[in-house]
Amino acid sequence: MSDATRILLDESRIPRNWYNILADLPAPPPPPLHPTTREPVGPDDLAPLFPAELIAQEVSTDRFVPIPDGVLDIYRLWRPTPLIRARKLERALGTPARIYYKYEGGSPSGSHKPNTAVPQAYYNARQGIRRLTTETGAGQWGTALAFACAQYGLACEVWMVRASYDQKPHRRSLMRVYGATVHASPSAVTSVGSKILAEDADSPGSLGIAISEAVEVAAGADDTRYALGSVLNHVLLHQTVIGEEALEQLAAFGETPDLIVGCTGGGSNFAGLAFPFIREKLAGRMNPLIRAVEPAACPSFTRGTYAYDFGDTAGFTPLLKMHTLGHTFIPDPIHAGGLRYHGMSPLLSHMYELGMFEAVAREQRECFEAGVRFARAEGIVPAPEPTHALAEVIAEALRCKESGEEKVILTSLCGHGHFDLSAYDRYLSGELEDFRLPQERIDDALATLPRA
Amino acid sequence: MSDATRILLDESRIPRNWYNILADLPAPPPPPLHPTTREPVGPDDLAPLFPAELIAQEVSTDRFVPIPDGVLDIYRLWRPTPLIRARKLERALGTPARIYYKYEGGSPSGSHKPNTAVPQAYYNARQGIRRLTTETGAGQWGTALAFACAQYGLACEVWMVRASYDQKPHRRSLMRVYGATVHASPSAVTSVGSKILAEDADSPGSLGIAISEAVEVAAGADDTRYALGSVLNHVLLHQTVIGEEALEQLAAFGETPDLIVGCTGGGSNFAGLAFPFIREKLAGRMNPLIRAVEPAACPSFTRGTYAYDFGDTAGFTPLLKMHTLGHTFIPDPIHAGGLRYHGMSPLLSHMYELGMFEAVAREQRECFEAGVRFARAEGIVPAPEPTHALAEVIAEALRCKESGEEKVILTSLCGHGHFDLSAYDRYLSGELEDFRLPQERIDDALATLPRA
Repeated sequence: MSDATRILLDESRIPRNWYNILADLPAPPPPPLHPTTREPVGPDDLAPLFPAELIAQEVSTDRFVPIPDGVLDIYRLWRPTPLIRARKLERALGTPARIYYKYEGGSPSGSHKPNTAVPQAYYNARQGIRRLTTETGAGQWGTALAFACAQYGLACEVWMVRASYDQKPHRRSLMRVYGATVHASPSAVTSVGSKILAEDADSPGSLGIAISEAVEVAAGADDTRYALGSVLNHVLLHQTVIGEEALEQLAAFGETPDLIVGCTGGGSNFAGLAFPFIREKLAGRMNPLIRAVEPAACPSFTRGTYAYDFGDTAGFTPLLKMHTLGHTFIPDPIHAGGLRYHGMSPLLSHMYELGMFEAVAREQRECFEAGVRFARAEGIVPAPEPTHALAEVIAEALRCKESGEEKVILTSLCGHGHFDLSAYDRYLSGELEDFRLPQERIDDALATLPRA
Repeated sequence: MSDATRILLDESRIPRNWYNILADLPAPPPPPLHPTTREPVGPDDLAPLFPAELIAQEVSTDRFVPIPDGVLDIYRLWRPTPLIRARKLERALGTPARIYYKYEGGSPSGSHKPNTAVPQAYYNARQGIRRLTTETGAGQWGTALAFACAQYGLACEVWMVRASYDQKPHRRSLMRVYGATVHASPSAVTSVGSKILAEDADSPGSLGIAISEAVEVAAGADDTRYALGSVLNHVLLHQTVIGEEALEQLAAFGETPDLIVGCTGGGSNFAGLAFPFIREKLAGRMNPLIRAVEPAACPSFTRGTYAYDFGDTAGFTPLLKMHTLGHTFIPDPIHAGGLRYHGMSPLLSHMYELGMFEAVAREQRECFEAGVRFARAEGIVPAPEPTHALAEVIAEALRCKESGEEKVILTSLCGHGHFDLSAYDRYLSGELEDFRLPQERIDDALATLPRA
């Protein structure tokens, strides 16, 4: 075991391929269905929304997908990211466990999101597309896409959930610095937005509504496509650079993981870290337990149902077989905006059904407590999303303290919290709340699931 | 010349010594004087404010000062920092110049400040001190000291200039996350603050006032000392890790610098980058031109005078021989809060008089223009302070485009701008202003200089 604190890799060690776990599953996940015909959607159905290369990646079963030079050229600005042993946190907890975190917060936009924003912008630019539309909640995805579009000379238009638009002006400004246009969602620019505003001029919006708006605009213009920051197969594929690098770095530490922990919203951060390790596990080269952590206020794995549902509120998207709380479910306003999504990646949902990993839910306050503990020990203030993984890591490390186990725990610190400090301030002032989620709210939303 | 974009160094390459340029100067700088006796201040005069080790470092003429293991142990969390070639910016400018930037924004607090905050907290803790006080303007220094104090279990009390306290709640929250207590300055906690509040209850404060408050509290308690984030010799000493690493990294790129550019407020970032290169220049191993860039709204080098003056507004500090605009000078509210200081490091002032580097001033709007250009090309949004250096680098690169010179330009990107996005927003909206600084304002402030 190495006595290092950080393992850095030279840019020559950026992975040359994304890893496609579809090649290694015992059965493929159920396909997306057309909302009216209920037939599996084909490339033609998706062509108004995505460029051909991404549609091909969405259904590819090639084990490895080469990363184009034009993407590596941008990855080089911040990749490989460091793998850091949390020695100070271990000491503060007095645990015999060894905790490693892959830090993605050093990217231009401060999270793991550019790992997929960059290839998405690249393939669109190569196909001659001039503009990308997208939605953003807390702003991490919108910022990443704005950055990526600036790199390839694409226009970028972002629908930002109104509540965040008002509360997080700095994320909005960051998108503008990168040259993007930002709309508060619901907006009068789209017909779906106008309809919602007509009913409720003060609507705080939701991720589902913002998706509907971005999709509407992309579908209506030949030179415009839509980009999604999580959920879809190709997004998870792009994020596997995280796990591929971590594999090499953990080996350089001389370690094999016993437990891998990641937070899940749409699932791309968790999948990016876990998939390459699951490959190694399937090949019998290691045997880590793998655990997803979701917010108790939006528990699609632990309290949702596995069914076909829409990805957005208005029902524009294909039907996706996934763990869902119902597309009309509006999560309570926890600060981990990136985890406030009613559904879950269909690929991860399928793997969860196959028993390939487990899932737990964590309350908001224990997550912020973990975030403050981590910041005081390790210096980095985590975004609210990865504090869910950290709360689980800390709980596990304290269990190891009881049992004396020298477990090797690996997690992904997928973003820094510099844009979330008002939430930390509320936590420190004792003003932050946990939310009780009564079963009726889930049942009511599930009652609106499209009929099979 | 390497085709790399980033040169990373393993943690084993963290410098083992700080470089003390006092060992290599033809003459020592004039000493600080006691404000009443006008005699050079001795260690006893400084003992109420600083621990013995830092006082010794302040006057040491040893060429190399070993970095203690207890400091290296914390540096390891983020050092060595990367040296990055700005290939995308070069391409966007169409320049034959090659631009390299040392990126310090990946530190826990997001700037170069922890390089000195950590050793300052370390030496205080070793001497049994329990609490540190300091001032902060924009908040970068206060955040860094709060982080460092958390590492060594010290209490930390920060006086934050009221204008920033109100405008930058996120920096304030970040200090609280690290466990520090933050006061708006002027505060009712000190007698100097109370006096100012009695005259003007709405005083926006200034860095000079905040220093006076922090010094008053430190001087009045046995277990408390004061920490300064720039200006003093030991602070500049600690920052030389930047330049030592950059020397090794630039050599790894296969390059020798033609021009080194850094922004100057109190001078620690500039000195940290430049001093090791000046050593190499004095030894005849290279011959770079070295240029400091200051804001036109606070031009201590280019429009100040070289004289003994107070470091703070109230006149608590020793008299320092430096380039100063007068200790009563209040700079216009530019967003580069870290550069809004009436004086300049006495060591740098002395070296400037010796002709060891040159200085220029830049207006606020051209700096933000450079910041936006840099962000769109390189992905990183710079803090307003280093945009001053970037404006100069871009101007030089465009001169190289005219002349065809393949100049090698090195600068330090000393912090990210994630806490400064409202200023970027104002720039993008055309609301940001340049300030005219009439000579009378400087003359009026200089008229209050203490008599020789």
